[in-house]
Amino acid sequence: AFHDGTSNSGGESSKESSRSSTPVLAADRTERLRDKMRRRTESGDHWFSLEFFPPRTASGAVNLVSRFDRMGSGGPLFIDITWHPAGDPGSDKETSSMMIASTAVNYCGLESILHLTCCNQTKEKITGYLSKAKHLGLKNIMALRGDPVGADWEEEEGGFNYATDLVKHIRCEFDDYFDICVAGYPTGHPEADSYDEDLRHLKEKVDAGADFIITQLFFRADTFLKFVRDCRAIGITCPILPGIFPIQGYQSLRQLVKLSKLEVPEEIMRVIEPIKDNDAAIRNYGIEQTVGMCRVLLESGNVPGLHFYTLNREVATMEVLRQLGLWIEDPRRPLPWAVSAHPKRKVEDVRPIFWASRPKSYIYRTQDWDDFPNGRWGNSSSPAFGELNDYYLFYLKSKSSKDALLKMWGEELTSEQSVYEVFTSYIKAQPNCAGHKVMCLPWNDEPLAPETNLMMDELDKVNRRGVLTINSQPTINGKPSDDPIVGWGPPGGYVFQKAYLEFFTSSENVTVLLKVLKKYEPRVNYHIVNVHGQNTTNAHDMQPNAVTWGIFPGREIVQPTVVDPVSFMYWKDEAFALWIEQWAELYDDESPSRMIIKYIHDNYFLVNLVDNDFPLDNCLWQVIDDMFELLDNPPEEQPTEQPVEQPAEESPVEDQSPK
Amino acid sequence: AFHDGTSNSGGESSKESSRSSTPVLAADRTERLRDKMRRRTESGDHWFSLEFFPPRTASGAVNLVSRFDRMGSGGPLFIDITWHPAGDPGSDKETSSMMIASTAVNYCGLESILHLTCCNQTKEKITGYLSKAKHLGLKNIMALRGDPVGADWEEEEGGFNYATDLVKHIRCEFDDYFDICVAGYPTGHPEADSYDEDLRHLKEKVDAGADFIITQLFFRADTFLKFVRDCRAIGITCPILPGIFPIQGYQSLRQLVKLSKLEVPEEIMRVIEPIKDNDAAIRNYGIEQTVGMCRVLLESGNVPGLHFYTLNREVATMEVLRQLGLWIEDPRRPLPWAVSAHPKRKVEDVRPIFWASRPKSYIYRTQDWDDFPNGRWGNSSSPAFGELNDYYLFYLKSKSSKDALLKMWGEELTSEQSVYEVFTSYIKAQPNCAGHKVMCLPWNDEPLAPETNLMMDELDKVNRRGVLTINSQPTINGKPSDDPIVGWGPPGGYVFQKAYLEFFTSSENVTVLLKVLKKYEPRVNYHIVNVHGQNTTNAHDMQPNAVTWGIFPGREIVQPTVVDPVSFMYWKDEAFALWIEQWAELYDDESPSRMIIKYIHDNYFLVNLVDNDFPLDNCLWQVIDDMFELLDNPPEEQPTEQPVEQPAEESPVEDQSPK
Repeated sequence: AFHDGTSNSGGESSKESSRSSTPVLAADRTERLRDKMRRRTESGDHWFSLEFFPPRTASGAVNLVSRFDRMGSGGPLFIDITWHPAGDPGSDKETSSMMIASTAVNYCGLESILHLTCCNQTKEKITGYLSKAKHLGLKNIMALRGDPVGADWEEEEGGFNYATDLVKHIRCEFDDYFDICVAGYPTGHPEADSYDEDLRHLKEKVDAGADFIITQLFFRADTFLKFVRDCRAIGITCPILPGIFPIQGYQSLRQLVKLSKLEVPEEIMRVIEPIKDNDAAIRNYGIEQTVGMCRVLLESGNVPGLHFYTLNREVATMEVLRQLGLWIEDPRRPLPWAVSAHPKRKVEDVRPIFWASRPKSYIYRTQDWDDFPNGRWGNSSSPAFGELNDYYLFYLKSKSSKDALLKMWGEELTSEQSVYEVFTSYIKAQPNCAGHKVMCLPWNDEPLAPETNLMMDELDKVNRRGVLTINSQPTINGKPSDDPIVGWGPPGGYVFQKAYLEFFTSSENVTVLLKVLKKYEPRVNYHIVNVHGQNTTNAHDMQPNAVTWGIFPGREIVQPTVVDPVSFMYWKDEAFALWIEQWAELYDDESPSRMIIKYIHDNYFLVNLVDNDFPLDNCLWQVIDDMFELLDNPPEEQPTEQPVEQPAEESPVEDQSPK
Repeated sequence: AFHDGTSNSGGESSKESSRSSTPVLAADRTERLRDKMRRRTESGDHWFSLEFFPPRTASGAVNLVSRFDRMGSGGPLFIDITWHPAGDPGSDKETSSMMIASTAVNYCGLESILHLTCCNQTKEKITGYLSKAKHLGLKNIMALRGDPVGADWEEEEGGFNYATDLVKHIRCEFDDYFDICVAGYPTGHPEADSYDEDLRHLKEKVDAGADFIITQLFFRADTFLKFVRDCRAIGITCPILPGIFPIQGYQSLRQLVKLSKLEVPEEIMRVIEPIKDNDAAIRNYGIEQTVGMCRVLLESGNVPGLHFYTLNREVATMEVLRQLGLWIEDPRRPLPWAVSAHPKRKVEDVRPIFWASRPKSYIYRTQDWDDFPNGRWGNSSSPAFGELNDYYLFYLKSKSSKDALLKMWGEELTSEQSVYEVFTSYIKAQPNCAGHKVMCLPWNDEPLAPETNLMMDELDKVNRRGVLTINSQPTINGKPSDDPIVGWGPPGGYVFQKAYLEFFTSSENVTVLLKVLKKYEPRVNYHIVNVHGQNTTNAHDMQPNAVTWGIFPGREIVQPTVVDPVSFMYWKDEAFALWIEQWAELYDDESPSRMIIKYIHDNYFLVNLVDNDFPLDNCLWQVIDDMFELLDNPPEEQPTEQPVEQPAEESPVEDQSPK
C-alpha cells in the first residue's frame, strides 16, 4: 500500500487487487471451478462471469490487464478468453490467448477459462497447447470445434472433427486435471441438420467429459429456458449458463448477427433501427433489454449464474450487473494483498510488505518457486527471487505513456528539490508546477487511495524535506475484519497492523536518523540500505517481522505481511532500479535531469521502519520529526565518526535541500 | 491450565512446566549446550547446573521427576544424571540412569548430561548405550572411566582404560553429535601418580574432543582457582566448571569423603564436629560456607557458572542459589506450555489446548512424530496420536498414593452429586466433607494455581450443578509479554487469548446447552462428544482455532495453543479413560462408588467452548448461566426432537442432580 493513511493495508490501497466474490473461505482458493459453481448453485447465490477476447496490440494488452483488475473487483466467478486461431493464440506474444489467460490467472488472480478450438489441428499441437496451459496454471478449457479454414473442409479420419473429439482428447491425455466447458446453441448450431440433432451432439460432448455448458447468445429468455428444458429432457444434467449479450451498438450487433447466423427478433430491431446512429441510446436500450431478460432468467429458478459477452467493454456489462445487484461494490478481500489464482499458489498466505504496491512484480519474481509460504514466512535464508530484468512486460509496465510520465514527473528537473516536489504533488493529488496532476510514481502505478487523507499532512511534510516515501501503513489495533477500509479475511474477525514506513533519503539524513533511532530501541526496527547493498539494521537473527495479521473465529492466526530482512535485499534492487528504468531513462543521456535521478539512485538510502508497539500511537512520524529537529539544531560538538559512509562523489547539481 | 482464572494460560497454572532460564530467544531451544555456555560466558551472565543420581525405587523416580520440575523452574543451564553401573543404568527401568535422563530431557524440558563410565565395558556395549541415548534425544555425555570392579583390574589392550578412550570412541563413532564433558580433579585424581600427571591426563581428554570440564568437589575456592590457572598454563582452554558441594549433613559428608578420598579442611571439621548431631545446624553452616566460597569463585572472573552436587535434595542448593541471586524466581516462559528439550522437538511451537494440564502425556503420545507443528497446527487430518495405554508410567502417574486419592476423592460415593462435590472442593481448595483437602483431580495432578481466585465463584457455581470443569482460560486482549501472571515469550511483546472452557456434563444438560448455543453463533465454537465418539460441533472444515497467541518485536506471530477438532477426538479418549483408570479403579469391582464413576464415564459428554470475540468480555459463563436458566424454567411446549441421543441405560443410583 502506498501511503494508505489510517485506512488501508498492503497493496490494496491501489486498485491492483484481485478480489474474491464470496465471503472468503479457504475453499475459495482451493476449490476447482466446477465445485465453486456447485457450491454457489446449492447456496442459491447467483453469480456472473465475463468473456473477453485477446487484444490486437501491445498497448491493448496493457489496457486489457487493467480492465481485468477493474472488472475483477466486481467479483466474477470466472472470466474466459477466446481463442483466435489467426492470432498465434498459443504463443508467448502479449496478444496471444494463452498469455492473456495466463496473466488473468497469475497476475490478476482471476479464475479463468481458456478457449481452445481443434478444427484443422494435429493431436500433437493440441496436446502441446494443453500442456503449456497446465504449466502456466490454467485449469479450465472451453472445448470448441472452431470454424473450418477454407470452404473445402472435410471430416478427417481420427482427426478433430467435433468439439466432442477435443473433450475426449483432453480427458484421455490430462485425465481430470482440467474443468471442461462446452458450447450450447439455444436455437441449434447453424450447421446442424436440426435442433434435435444439435442437442444430441451436445449430449455427446457432456458424456465425453464436459463439466458445464455456456450457451451462444440469444435475445429472448424463453429461448434459453426452453433449451434448458430440452437438455434436461434428454439427460443433460450439468450446469447450463446463459450467454448474455448486452447490445452495445448498431455495428457490433450487425457483425455479431452475421457471424453467429442468429436472427434478431423484430421487437428489438423495431426499437433499434430508428436510433441506429445514436450509440448512447442503443447502449441504454441494450442495458434495459438485458436487465429485463436477466431478471426473467434468474427468477425462473433454472439459472444459477449469467455469462456476459463483454466485447472487451466495461460500461454496459457493469451497469447491467449493478442493476441486477450482482456487482459486488465492496467485495471482501481474502488477504490484504492481491492473490494469484495459479493452483500452486493456492496455499500462499504470507508475503513481504515491500511489493505491496507491485504485486504483479512479486508474482513474476517468485513464479519459479515450488512452494509458497503458508502460515509463516519462516527463516528464509535464501528465498531465491528471480531477477526482474524486463521492466516492460505488458503486465508489469506503467499504464502511462512516456509523454504522460514526462508531464507528471517533469520535462526538466533542476535539483533534488524538484524531485521532492513530484512526490508531494503525487501525495496531495495536486497539479505539479507545470499544471499536471501526478497520478503515479515509479513505485506505484495507481493514484493514492482516497483514504490517505488523514496521513497526508505528515506525508507532505516529510516528502517536502526529502524523505521520499514509497510505502506505508498505519497502526491498527484490532479493527473488525469487515471494516470497509482496513478489513480483510472472513467476517467476525479482527485485523491488526504494525505501523510501517519506507522511503528514500539522503545519506546526510540517514546519518542523523541513525542517532535518533537509538532512542527508539527496541520499539522501532529498521533496515537501511544503499544501492550497493551497504546495510544497517537493528533486527536480529534475520527473522521476519509480522506487520499485518488477523484473528478469526474458528481459525488459526493469519499473518499475511512481513518485513523480511532477506527479501528486502531483493526488493532494494528493484526499488533502486525503478529510479533508472522508469524515471531517468525518460531523459536524454547526458541531461541534467537524468543526472539528478542518477545521483539520487547512486547516493540515497532506502529505509524501512517498523513500530513494534502496535497498541500505542504510531511513533514513526516522531522519529522523522526528531531527525529534522536534529538536522535543524545540530549539537555543538560534531561527532567525528560517521555511522554511514558519505557518498564518494559530490552532487552534480546545486543542493537545494533545506538545511 | 486447569482453571487458570483471570490469570494464567496453558499448562502453566500448574507447576508442571519447564522454564527457560534466559530471556527467551529461539536460539535457546536450538543451540547446543556448549554454544549456550559460550553465549552465557561472553555475556558475563553467571549460570548454575545441578547434578542428580538415579533413584533406587519406582516411587523415588516419581518424586525425582517432580523435583526436576521444581528445581528446573529456577533456571539451571543443565542438569546431569550419574551413571550407576550396578543399577542396570542403560535399561528401560524407571530407575535407570538412561530413563531418568531421558525423562528430564523429554518430559521436563531440561538440557541434560548423561554420565557414562567405560571401565570393564566392551565397545559394542558402549556404542549401544550411546545410540540409545541419541535415539532418546540426549545430546550430552559426561565421559568417565568409572571405578574398576574388583581389585584385580588391569589395563586392557584396545579396551577402555581411561576416560580419554571413551572420549575418542564417542568422537569416532558419533562425530560431533554429542557435547562431551569430562571430570577434572582440583587436587589430582586419587589414583594418579602426581597432580601434574593428572593435569596431563586431563589435557589428553580435552585434546581427544571434550568440550568442557566439571571438577570434583573441593572445599576452598583457592583450590579451584589454582587448578584453573594450572590448566590454562598447559593449554587447556575449554570451560572449567567448579563442582560445588553444600555440606548437608555429617553422615553424607563422611561418606563422600571416603568415596572421593578427599580431605576436609580442618577449619571446616572444627565447626562441624561439635554440631554433628544437629542436621539443621550443619545444613545452615553448609549453606553459609558454600555461599561464601561461591562468591569468591564468581568474583574471581574465572568462573562463568557453578555446578551443584545436589545429592537429590532441594533445600540447601536452592538456598545457596537464592543467596547468590542465581535462582530465577519468575523465569520467563518461552511458550505458555512446557517445552520438551528433545532435539527433534526444538521447532515445536503449537499444541492443542486439551493437554494443557497433562503436557507429559502429550509428549508421550506424540513421541513417535517425525515432525512437529511449527507456526501453524495446520489441517491435521490425521495427527496419529499414540495410544495411552499405560497410565502408570512413572513420569505420567499421579504423585499421590491410592490411599491419599481415596481420602481426597471419597472413600465411598453415593451419587453423581458427591462427584460434583469433589470438583468444588478441588476448586475452592477446601477440605471435602471428610475433612481432606482435594489437591488434585484425575485431569490435573497439581493444586489449582492461586491466581484462579477471580474465577473461583463461577467455577464453584457451575461445578456444583454438574458442569465438571477440567480446563479453562480467560480472555486476554493484549497484555504485555512480561506480565508476571499471563506473560510468555520475549520481552516487549503482547499476548492474547480467546476464552476457553472444557467440562464434562450430563446428556440432559447438553440437550439444553445446544439450544442455548444457537444464540451464540458464530461467536462461540463448540465441540461436544461422548465416550463413544458421538460428536456435535459448529466448527467448520476441521480447521484448528488458535486460542493463545503472541505478537513480539521483530518476530512472526506465535500461536502456541489451538483447539483442534481432530486431536480433540484423541484427547477425549484420554479424558474419558481417566475417569476409569484413575478414579473408578480405586473402588471394588461391583461397588456403588465404582458404578457411579462408570455411569458418568458412559453417559456424560465432554464439552469444549471457545469465545472467539476476544476483545469483548468472556461470554462463556453467560452460556452456562443461560443453560441453567433454561433447565430451571423450561418452555411450556416441550420440544419433541432430541438433538443429542439420550443415554440408553438409566442411572444406577438415585439421581440427585438439581432440577
